[in-house]
Amino acid sequence: MNPSGVAFVDGRYCPVEEARIPVLDMAVTKGDSTYDVVHVWRGRFFRLDDHLDRFEASMKALRLDPGLDRAQIEDVLHGCVRRAGLQDAYVSMTCTRGRTAIPGSRDIRTARNGFYAYAVPFVWINTLEQQELGASLWISGRPRIAPESVDPAVKNYHWLDIQMAQFEAYDHDAQLVVLRDMSGGITEGAGYNVFAYVDDRWITPAHGVLKGVTRQTVIEILAEDGIPLEEGHLAEEALLRASEVMVTSTAGGIMPVTTVNGTPVNSGHPGPQTQHLRNRYWARHEDPRWSTPVR
Amino acid sequence: MNPSGVAFVDGRYCPVEEARIPVLDMAVTKGDSTYDVVHVWRGRFFRLDDHLDRFEASMKALRLDPGLDRAQIEDVLHGCVRRAGLQDAYVSMTCTRGRTAIPGSRDIRTARNGFYAYAVPFVWINTLEQQELGASLWISGRPRIAPESVDPAVKNYHWLDIQMAQFEAYDHDAQLVVLRDMSGGITEGAGYNVFAYVDDRWITPAHGVLKGVTRQTVIEILAEDGIPLEEGHLAEEALLRASEVMVTSTAGGIMPVTTVNGTPVNSGHPGPQTQHLRNRYWARHEDPRWSTPVR
Repeated sequence: MNPSGVAFVDGRYCPVEEARIPVLDMAVTKGDSTYDVVHVWRGRFFRLDDHLDRFEASMKALRLDPGLDRAQIEDVLHGCVRRAGLQDAYVSMTCTRGRTAIPGSRDIRTARNGFYAYAVPFVWINTLEQQELGASLWISGRPRIAPESVDPAVKNYHWLDIQMAQFEAYDHDAQLVVLRDMSGGITEGAGYNVFAYVDDRWITPAHGVLKGVTRQTVIEILAEDGIPLEEGHLAEEALLRASEVMVTSTAGGIMPVTTVNGTPVNSGHPGPQTQHLRNRYWARHEDPRWSTPVR
Repeated sequence: MNPSGVAFVDGRYCPVEEARIPVLDMAVTKGDSTYDVVHVWRGRFFRLDDHLDRFEASMKALRLDPGLDRAQIEDVLHGCVRRAGLQDAYVSMTCTRGRTAIPGSRDIRTARNGFYAYAVPFVWINTLEQQELGASLWISGRPRIAPESVDPAVKNYHWLDIQMAQFEAYDHDAQLVVLRDMSGGITEGAGYNVFAYVDDRWITPAHGVLKGVTRQTVIEILAEDGIPLEEGHLAEEALLRASEVMVTSTAGGIMPVTTVNGTPVNSGHPGPQTQHLRNRYWARHEDPRWSTPVR
C-alpha cells in the first residue's frame, strides 16, 4: 500500500514520488507526448474503455507506439491502483516520443517511444467548498492554441497558454479559467469543458476542445432526460447571460460555476439542473455499464 | 571527465544519462517551463551574456523563479562543461514550474519552481554532408502555434506542431522544415530561424519567431558588411524564388538550404553569401568580444 501513489516507469512499479523521466526525452524537450487520465471511484474504474480508445487514437495521431498492447496498458493501470491501495484515484498514462537512436541526432523517426503511468489520490479541480457553493470563472484574453497547430482532441501537455490564463484568472480573483479561440468563441479551460444553459438549452463548444469523457457523459444524460443540448458555438455573450454554467472534468466530475468575470450567474447559486446532472453523473459510477472493478 | 555529458539536477552534478525530472513536475504535465541553450566552441562560450539575458527575460515573462541568481546559473553552466571535459558543447538550462505545495492542488501560485542544466557534445541540426552540400527545406501546411497563445520569443518546449511538421517534411524527403503563421507568412523551423535573399536583400521574419542569438549575429554581420537586410514579413512566394536560403541556430550555426519544397534554390548549391556569412560567424568564436573561456 502506498496511498500517496504508485507509478509504473521503465517497466517497473515505484512510489510516485520516485517516478522520473529523462531530461533528454522529447516528452520534456519538445512536449512530444500524449496522455490520458481515467479515474477510479469507490474501487471502480469509470469508463476505462473510452479512455483507452482515446489514448490509442491520440498515439496513432502522433505516430507514437508505447511498446505495450491495450491489455498490457490496462494491466498496468490496474496494477498502479491496486498497489497504491486507493479506493478513489486519478490514473494517468503517458506515451512519450523518447530519444533518437543516436545522441544529438534530430531524426525523430528513429526515436524509441516510452510509456509510463501512475495512480494518485483522486484530484478535484475545485475545492469541496467550490463544489457546493460554486466556483468563479474568468474568460481569459489569451487565445487557446489553435487546433490547426496542435489538436486539443489529441490530449497533450501544451498548456502554457492555459497556465498563463490561470494566472490571469487568479489576478482577477477567479478560481477557474476558460480560453477563447482566435475568433472569440469559448473553447475549454484548465482540463475541463464548459457547458452553459442559454435560451432554453445547454450549449457546449464543439470545436477546439478535448472531447472529454465527462463531457460525453453529460451529453448522454441530457439525451436520456430529453433536455436540449447544442454542441456547437458558445459565444462569450451567451456564456455571460447563461442561467446555469458548469465545467466538466475527470478530475472532479461536474462542477457548478456561479460567477463569470465577476458577475453572478443567475442567483449566484448552483443551478438546479447542474445539481441534478451532478447526482446523475455520480450515480453512474456504481453502474456496471459504465464502471469496472479494480482487479 | 564524462564526454557523453554532465547535468546539474536537484542541486548536484551527475552524468546526463542519469538526469531525470519528476513526472509530476508541471514542466512535464503542463509543458510549463522555459529554457535556453548556449554553445561552447573550442573551449569558449559564445555570447553567454545574451543567452542569460534572454533566459532571465523568459523566466520573468512566465513568472518563474529558478532559485539561483545569474552568477550561480553561470557557475552551473561552467561546471557542467568543465566536468564533462567537452571542448565543443551544447549547454542547456531549464526553469520548471515544479509542483504545487499540496499534492493534488491546482494552485500554480504555490508551486516551487525548479532548475536544471546540462552540457552534452555540440549538436548539429544538420549532418556534415548537409552543411557542405546544403539541406532540403519543406514548408509545412501546419501553422506554427500563434504568438498570442504561446509567445515563441519566450523559449519553450511547445513543439508538437513542429514535430508533426518535421514528420511531414520527412514524408516529402526533406530534411528541414519551416512553419507558416495563420496568414501564411513564414515563421521558424525546428529550432532555427530562416533567412532568404530576395530582390537584392536578405529577409528574415520579424514576428512569430524566437529572436535567435545566431539570427542576431547574422544581423550584426550584415550591418557591418553593409549588406541590406529586412526584418519583416517573409512571404512563401519570396522564399520560393530566393537566390540564397539559410537557417540559423545555436545547434549548428549558419546552414545553407539548397532546395525548398523540392525545387533547387538558384543553382542548387550553397550560395556565396551564405558561405561568407558562415565563415564570418565561426571566426567570431575566437573573438573575446563574443566569447568567454570555460572556467
